[in-house]
Amino acid sequence: MHITECIVSAPGKAILHGEHAVVHGKVALAVSLNLRTFLRLLPNCTGKVCINLPNIHTFLSWDVTSLQSLLPDQADDLKNAKELDMDLVPRLRSFIGVTDGITDTSTMAVLAFLYVYTSVFAESRELPGLTVSVWSELPTGAGLGSSAAFSVCLAAALLSARGAITRPQAGLEHTARWSEEEMQLINTWAFLGEKIIHGNPSGTFESQTDSVFVWLVPMLRILLTNTKVPRSTKVLVAGVKDKINKFPAVMNPVLESIDAVSCKCQQTLSEMATEPTPEHYDVLEELIDINQHHLNVIGVGHPSLDRLCQVTLGLGLHSKLTGAGGGGCGITLLRPDTSSSVIQNAIQEVKDCGYDCWETSIGAPGVQHHSPSSMKEEVLQLLNSL
Amino acid sequence: MHITECIVSAPGKAILHGEHAVVHGKVALAVSLNLRTFLRLLPNCTGKVCINLPNIHTFLSWDVTSLQSLLPDQADDLKNAKELDMDLVPRLRSFIGVTDGITDTSTMAVLAFLYVYTSVFAESRELPGLTVSVWSELPTGAGLGSSAAFSVCLAAALLSARGAITRPQAGLEHTARWSEEEMQLINTWAFLGEKIIHGNPSGTFESQTDSVFVWLVPMLRILLTNTKVPRSTKVLVAGVKDKINKFPAVMNPVLESIDAVSCKCQQTLSEMATEPTPEHYDVLEELIDINQHHLNVIGVGHPSLDRLCQVTLGLGLHSKLTGAGGGGCGITLLRPDTSSSVIQNAIQEVKDCGYDCWETSIGAPGVQHHSPSSMKEEVLQLLNSL
Repeated sequence: MHITECIVSAPGKAILHGEHAVVHGKVALAVSLNLRTFLRLLPNCTGKVCINLPNIHTFLSWDVTSLQSLLPDQADDLKNAKELDMDLVPRLRSFIGVTDGITDTSTMAVLAFLYVYTSVFAESRELPGLTVSVWSELPTGAGLGSSAAFSVCLAAALLSARGAITRPQAGLEHTARWSEEEMQLINTWAFLGEKIIHGNPSGTFESQTDSVFVWLVPMLRILLTNTKVPRSTKVLVAGVKDKINKFPAVMNPVLESIDAVSCKCQQTLSEMATEPTPEHYDVLEELIDINQHHLNVIGVGHPSLDRLCQVTLGLGLHSKLTGAGGGGCGITLLRPDTSSSVIQNAIQEVKDCGYDCWETSIGAPGVQHHSPSSMKEEVLQLLNSL
Repeated sequence: MHITECIVSAPGKAILHGEHAVVHGKVALAVSLNLRTFLRLLPNCTGKVCINLPNIHTFLSWDVTSLQSLLPDQADDLKNAKELDMDLVPRLRSFIGVTDGITDTSTMAVLAFLYVYTSVFAESRELPGLTVSVWSELPTGAGLGSSAAFSVCLAAALLSARGAITRPQAGLEHTARWSEEEMQLINTWAFLGEKIIHGNPSGTFESQTDSVFVWLVPMLRILLTNTKVPRSTKVLVAGVKDKINKFPAVMNPVLESIDAVSCKCQQTLSEMATEPTPEHYDVLEELIDINQHHLNVIGVGHPSLDRLCQVTLGLGLHSKLTGAGGGGCGITLLRPDTSSSVIQNAIQEVKDCGYDCWETSIGAPGVQHHSPSSMKEEVLQLLNSL
């Protein structure tokens, strides 16, 4: 089997409106976030399979021959892999020497990698030596879809190495995407990776089927802030439920209003896709402010998020929490005419609060194949150094 | 006619929940506020009628004989005075030498006084010499009902001087109130005073007939803060209307939720009237927080009010705007177990923001007759010095 180098990337994900309301049957607007996870797959002739995950300080390698014995006797067709092979998971766990209860990020990422790697190559009965290095711009465990981006990259790179999907032709900008059918296959395998990482994903918004992932979003510049205040999605979701039970007549209209915010936002975004105007940005800002207040009403605000809103509003920028709240992350909308000095000031002031802050965008492209020359220099250097 | 000294007082008024929503057909909870207006009426034998309004720097006197000529030929029965005498008002205006367009606080207060004074004594065809001195703890024009309290005091004192209502028997605490029928007469005349002061009161919440004035409120301790940020009720009311028209699906549920907050608050207050518990205070605090967010959503918040909420929350106290918003006043609930050091710290920190702040209560008694010995020393001194 001839394996060639490949570099892929996948975006993160942010909830624009509807977090928490989605748990109560309302719409949520999830959008792609252009903080990306990059994965480089390199063939090697050391007879080893190596994974480097510098973000989570994980650098491991195994002999492919020892992994070979874990392969199922009969490999399914790649396209039929809808369910996890529940025999393989414990075999992989015991292979890397972690017991059942252990679910830390590093362990789960390694398990997901080994699962997709062994399964994708199972049919060929020959596991190739290769090195997978992953670098993510996304903070881990911040509700920004870092595990989904990781799983998507794993699936795209390994399926591509296996020859199950083509190597897409790069366009002018040396990035390329796959056909609809190939995307479907990537999605199937990425979903299995996600299932391994999250187990039964209760308490996460991802488990809600009503959420709407909006791809057709115009590219909008934002600041993404991580307050780094730890929070439990499960506890926050339960708190909202308690509030609704305590004050149903007060809270149910708030969920209704949040739903209307999501709808109005979606409508505004689709208008902006054809002809964005300053008034559209006014509406987006107003909806952000409204929903931030609503999220405070349902009890998922936090002083750190109030601070973010206050600091950015001081520079004329509008912010809201994104995701579970109670700390965690916030987004700040930038307008097309927001000057770079305002942006730099905002980033500095937010960082002065002790938060992480990135200038990025939403409505970013999905999974992509990169030629090395199309890569940001610093990311390439980072991957090369591994 | 024998006129005896009398001292009366009337409370201010604060909206606990439902400001603005009341304009859109929802309930508002108005409660009495124990920042009071005190009025002392003294007979004199100088043949002059004098009014001293130190809060608004107004000290005027007139010969009763010159006023006598303004009296209507035929005086109505005092109890039938439902409408303003539209001939008397311009006669009084020209008597004190102010033209039609002039509506400043001082002019309107003097007109209201002269109107009630001349009308109440019209039937007797003999205007007595007397001195009316008024001191109010209420800030003027802050939406706290200072003009209503003034009008109520005027009506009670002048009707009492005229002998149209009795001098009530003072109870243990040397304050007393009148019979139901007498209260009705005071109310009738106070309403005429209000009509003069406010003209056609459009754009004020007072003009809304749906508002519920809740008398049966347990006495609750509060801080009353005046941010002193000037605002126009009319502009704020119009802004809310615009927002509702712009985002009806988002805003209408918010009004509904505010309505539910008012109802839940009223229910909680009536439970507290029989047996108040700490949990009742928890609910009141939660409702305050929720409604403050809602008022921000409908666009009547202000950074000065955010500041008030933030500062008091730092001491575990919950605040919301009261009245029109956009600056103006805020209330902060004090619990029975809030220590005096916390209260003193809160007052100091609020004052450090540049605001006025008073410790007072809501659910205060209405119009009262006082014996001088029942009066706060500083108020009595103040009235005596005039």
